[in-house]
Amino acid sequence: MGQTLTEKILEDHLLDGELETGEEIGIEIDQVLTQDTTGTMVWLQFEALDLDEVQTEIAAQYCDHQTYQFDFKNTDDHRFLRSAAGTFGAHFSRPGNGICHNVHKENYAAPGKTLLGSDSHTPTPGGLGELAIGAGGLDIAVAMGGGPYYIEMPEIVNVRLEGELPEWATAKDVILEMLRRLSVKGGVGKVLEYTGPGVETLSAPERTTITNMGTELGATSSIFPTDERTEEYLEALGRGDEYVEVGPDEDAEYDDEITVDLSELEPLIAQPSMPDNIVPVREVAGTDVDQVIIGSCTNGGYEDVLPTAKMLEGREVDKKTDMIVAPASKQASEMLAREGWTAELMAAGVNFSESTCGPCIGIGHVPGSDSVSVRTFNRNFEGRSGIEDDSVYLCSPEVATAAAIKGELIDPRDLADELGDLEDPGFEMPDQYTGSKADLIPPEEAVDDDLIKGPNIADVPLKEPLDAEIGGEALLKMEDNITTDHIVPASSDILMYRSNIPKISEFTLSRVDDTFPERAQAADGGVLVAGENYGQGSSREHAALCPMYLGIEAVFAESFARIHKANLFNFGIVPYTIDEETYEKIEQGDDIEVVDDVQDGIASGKNEFTIRVNDDWEATARLDASEREREIVTAGGKLPYTKQQAEEGDLGGASPADD
Amino acid sequence: MGQTLTEKILEDHLLDGELETGEEIGIEIDQVLTQDTTGTMVWLQFEALDLDEVQTEIAAQYCDHQTYQFDFKNTDDHRFLRSAAGTFGAHFSRPGNGICHNVHKENYAAPGKTLLGSDSHTPTPGGLGELAIGAGGLDIAVAMGGGPYYIEMPEIVNVRLEGELPEWATAKDVILEMLRRLSVKGGVGKVLEYTGPGVETLSAPERTTITNMGTELGATSSIFPTDERTEEYLEALGRGDEYVEVGPDEDAEYDDEITVDLSELEPLIAQPSMPDNIVPVREVAGTDVDQVIIGSCTNGGYEDVLPTAKMLEGREVDKKTDMIVAPASKQASEMLAREGWTAELMAAGVNFSESTCGPCIGIGHVPGSDSVSVRTFNRNFEGRSGIEDDSVYLCSPEVATAAAIKGELIDPRDLADELGDLEDPGFEMPDQYTGSKADLIPPEEAVDDDLIKGPNIADVPLKEPLDAEIGGEALLKMEDNITTDHIVPASSDILMYRSNIPKISEFTLSRVDDTFPERAQAADGGVLVAGENYGQGSSREHAALCPMYLGIEAVFAESFARIHKANLFNFGIVPYTIDEETYEKIEQGDDIEVVDDVQDGIASGKNEFTIRVNDDWEATARLDASEREREIVTAGGKLPYTKQQAEEGDLGGASPADD
Repeated sequence: MGQTLTEKILEDHLLDGELETGEEIGIEIDQVLTQDTTGTMVWLQFEALDLDEVQTEIAAQYCDHQTYQFDFKNTDDHRFLRSAAGTFGAHFSRPGNGICHNVHKENYAAPGKTLLGSDSHTPTPGGLGELAIGAGGLDIAVAMGGGPYYIEMPEIVNVRLEGELPEWATAKDVILEMLRRLSVKGGVGKVLEYTGPGVETLSAPERTTITNMGTELGATSSIFPTDERTEEYLEALGRGDEYVEVGPDEDAEYDDEITVDLSELEPLIAQPSMPDNIVPVREVAGTDVDQVIIGSCTNGGYEDVLPTAKMLEGREVDKKTDMIVAPASKQASEMLAREGWTAELMAAGVNFSESTCGPCIGIGHVPGSDSVSVRTFNRNFEGRSGIEDDSVYLCSPEVATAAAIKGELIDPRDLADELGDLEDPGFEMPDQYTGSKADLIPPEEAVDDDLIKGPNIADVPLKEPLDAEIGGEALLKMEDNITTDHIVPASSDILMYRSNIPKISEFTLSRVDDTFPERAQAADGGVLVAGENYGQGSSREHAALCPMYLGIEAVFAESFARIHKANLFNFGIVPYTIDEETYEKIEQGDDIEVVDDVQDGIASGKNEFTIRVNDDWEATARLDASEREREIVTAGGKLPYTKQQAEEGDLGGASPADD
Repeated sequence: MGQTLTEKILEDHLLDGELETGEEIGIEIDQVLTQDTTGTMVWLQFEALDLDEVQTEIAAQYCDHQTYQFDFKNTDDHRFLRSAAGTFGAHFSRPGNGICHNVHKENYAAPGKTLLGSDSHTPTPGGLGELAIGAGGLDIAVAMGGGPYYIEMPEIVNVRLEGELPEWATAKDVILEMLRRLSVKGGVGKVLEYTGPGVETLSAPERTTITNMGTELGATSSIFPTDERTEEYLEALGRGDEYVEVGPDEDAEYDDEITVDLSELEPLIAQPSMPDNIVPVREVAGTDVDQVIIGSCTNGGYEDVLPTAKMLEGREVDKKTDMIVAPASKQASEMLAREGWTAELMAAGVNFSESTCGPCIGIGHVPGSDSVSVRTFNRNFEGRSGIEDDSVYLCSPEVATAAAIKGELIDPRDLADELGDLEDPGFEMPDQYTGSKADLIPPEEAVDDDLIKGPNIADVPLKEPLDAEIGGEALLKMEDNITTDHIVPASSDILMYRSNIPKISEFTLSRVDDTFPERAQAADGGVLVAGENYGQGSSREHAALCPMYLGIEAVFAESFARIHKANLFNFGIVPYTIDEETYEKIEQGDDIEVVDDVQDGIASGKNEFTIRVNDDWEATARLDASEREREIVTAGGKLPYTKQQAEEGDLGGASPADD
């Protein structure tokens, strides 16, 4: 039986387990990526584990999220990260050098490799045939130490592309179409493997727009095979020697198949406030637009800004509309500047900004109240832009630029008709990517060999092993699709405490209920209750760490987002699944006790636990966990668990798969 | 007797009073400038006065201070400002278009005109022969309505420039030398008029670096005569027709004279944490530098960034040093981009940023803890960078760039010796300034004709007329040189409430004593005590408005900074001067009552008032105030005072001077 591309890469890297859907496997990690929001904890954990040198082929630390400092904390964190990269042997990308996914894609991503990253959009280099997965920071720390990364073997879905994109339709519309069809839950537990004759019609950077935003489908990863287009891209980057051909066998068997006919696509747009709230742009044409932003890891590359620049050449942004362009990497910025496009953008009325995540996480360029913002980003969760009742639309650079010119939403095809002289700028890739590497510090040029910790960088808290009895008051009952942004908001005034768990915990779930943090601390223990897809969105492990710090012992939810569930195990919180009826019946404030001996039950592989609510009625709570996850959660989380392993000199990384 | 240039311009614009030093005069204002921190209050006051159209030749509203939004408030303010400019007939400069002083200089500043601006660095266009003065927002609102601007006739000092700058010395070193000699109080109550053979060796933009930073001397304004260099600059800006020759009479008499021999200057630097803490760079050479920033209204022009770009061409910023370049205007950014310099800067490792005030007021790029930041700005007051115990140095772009290359402070002459191939880039002005005007919206192209107020924009509070008795507890006793940054901090998390007085008042003087706001509100009335130069620094009127809102009735200080004193009158707080002995004797918490009938005493022109402290001892408090200031303060401030005048249809603007 033929293998899928995903299976081939996994088999090449398998250290533990078997490639059976749903089974836990341990794989070797070739590359790791950390950014500044999650990175401080990764390195503090790396230090806490008493590890002393990075063992992966590449470890790269980026500074992209926290670049609009308004006190010393972010700057101190960047200095700490530089010192950690230098001390432990990682590449360091300076603040302003760009968003991790873009800089990684340009400099390190390679076909056939595995990449683990502490950011949910880590799958971006899947467009180059790399199997790239987002994970919690602690998993990254262990992988950097040479330990395996454990994951449930995902389903593998064949996304068959046919035809070719028509004028004004783009790679962004491919992934928006996927979201329209599958919803933000449609990819959970799956790797989306793109195949078919449509693949070769898309350049490598276009493919990375699709793999990047596969995250919004909830997918574990998304991946394309490699071909001449991949090779052409790597050569243009000066890394042609890293090209290898990878792809599925012709007779590969998939768990599912979806067909997308590219030729049937048209300009699409995600309406507020979910990335799967998709309509054709024409359906919302005429909506006044106050702000347009081009950038982000989805559509911030040189190739993404170029169409905008071409469309704006000789034109002006509407006077009522603010337009910001923030290329996703310094390399893209430098190339655009060198070729004169930056000057053209500025002349048109564009505010040309630094290469950061910025407004995508509510840092800078927050929309005004009662206003519409149109962005080329990947997420429009309510409040993420920095204002609670925001109206953020997501689309391609072409659609966003059309809105900036017109001052309202308009299908670019209709704008072209109106203006008469506006042509589809199409997609263009340079023969050679230029741009200096002045902002990348490789390990051999490290400027620090000791950790530099500012006063806001606190030790990581450790949890005790699990008690025999767990349970307590249902401190909060939440709805479906609670995001990690709800659990720990990503706004700059909160995230600046990310390296200081006691402080940042004071904001836990405050967007759902601002009395929660205080109630949780007063309660000294308790549980959370949620609907479906709990913990979707960003991979930040603070969403598990902070509830742990506040004493939460278990989460009872109808279903969990993959990364967040792993994070819960990693921080010693038990993620129990309950059915809809139980969910409906539980009320906030109820007392929920797990009747069985939890420590013994989990250790012995028990899947079903009886819970008793208010000493009145009972229901079943399911625990889907691998043997390893059971060991971790009973040990009080992965940090105490791994520390013990490391002290015993065995992180598992050296063992062959069948040991 | 011959006239100085200042006297000539004042005489041309005189509406009230006589040009006698120390006498109050009322002058006609040709141009006004408002920025976004102070501008919302200006327009709310303009509205509260029931005025309906701008009467000055030019009114220009800029958005430069509050551009790193982290919620909707700043964006709402910008939208309100755009709507106010459109509704009342002002020019509007969009966020990202640059710092008010630079954009004003490039587009509107003209020789022989008067400019009033709600920003302390308003004197910048003095370099072009415009008499430009910073004032409180309410004065601006009245001037925009066509009313006179009242000011005490300043002393006029002749600053005679001789010789020519040697290699690596710059215009910045001229003003740093002035600060070294005169200190931050040396210019109080004075206009500094530059004359002598050295003037023609300096281009117009270099002159504006000097006039801009005259504010740090405490000067009312600084001004240069015009000549071929001015004409050349205006022509390069495409505004040659606005050139007029202005200058002092040959036999002009000055109140004082200072001579600066340009040929004796060398690279200087202001050490932390006052702009007058000046030493030659060589004295502090070897100090490690963590951050370098090029920009601000002092040294952020095209001509200021160009030397940096030339010095960095083919070189790299030290890996331990973060370097940020934020040109002060979009025009400068666009020109630098078009000529390829932006690409060179990026290639060297520079983070190229938006055209805003940004880090100069602690918004973005805050230094790390225990780190050194070297900036081309005009202020390094402690804490202004966004971190309390900062170490900010001020210098020329050449000195800052040398530090970025070396990673430590070094005299650029010594760096040139070390490197062998580094030449003084010198000063260069383009034949023609290019750059689009896409971000300037003139009144005739206004996009709004109604005010748009977001939910954080609150009505301006009105004070009742002064009581017969004032006094109360000395709620706070402060030292010398308290800045308006101490009174109302300029950090973004506080200034975002600037259009909401009840909220922003909660931060009043909290940097001096964080219990003050609560104590003041509880006390329901009280007074402040301070040493010399109270209220120096930024012109923000919130520094008077917030104490007024908290019930402060009087400030007893050894001396006052000029703009702040005017602001105190304008908001109905009595600024009493006390001698050093009295200052020393008063303790915080003392009860201070003005013995005389204050309402009557002030109205009748009384200068000396008896104060009684703790019902125990007495002293004299002096009130230096014009008749008009007495009318204003007894009316409860300028807003109730002017409103009444406007209702009577007489703002005073139409009257000839000798009426």
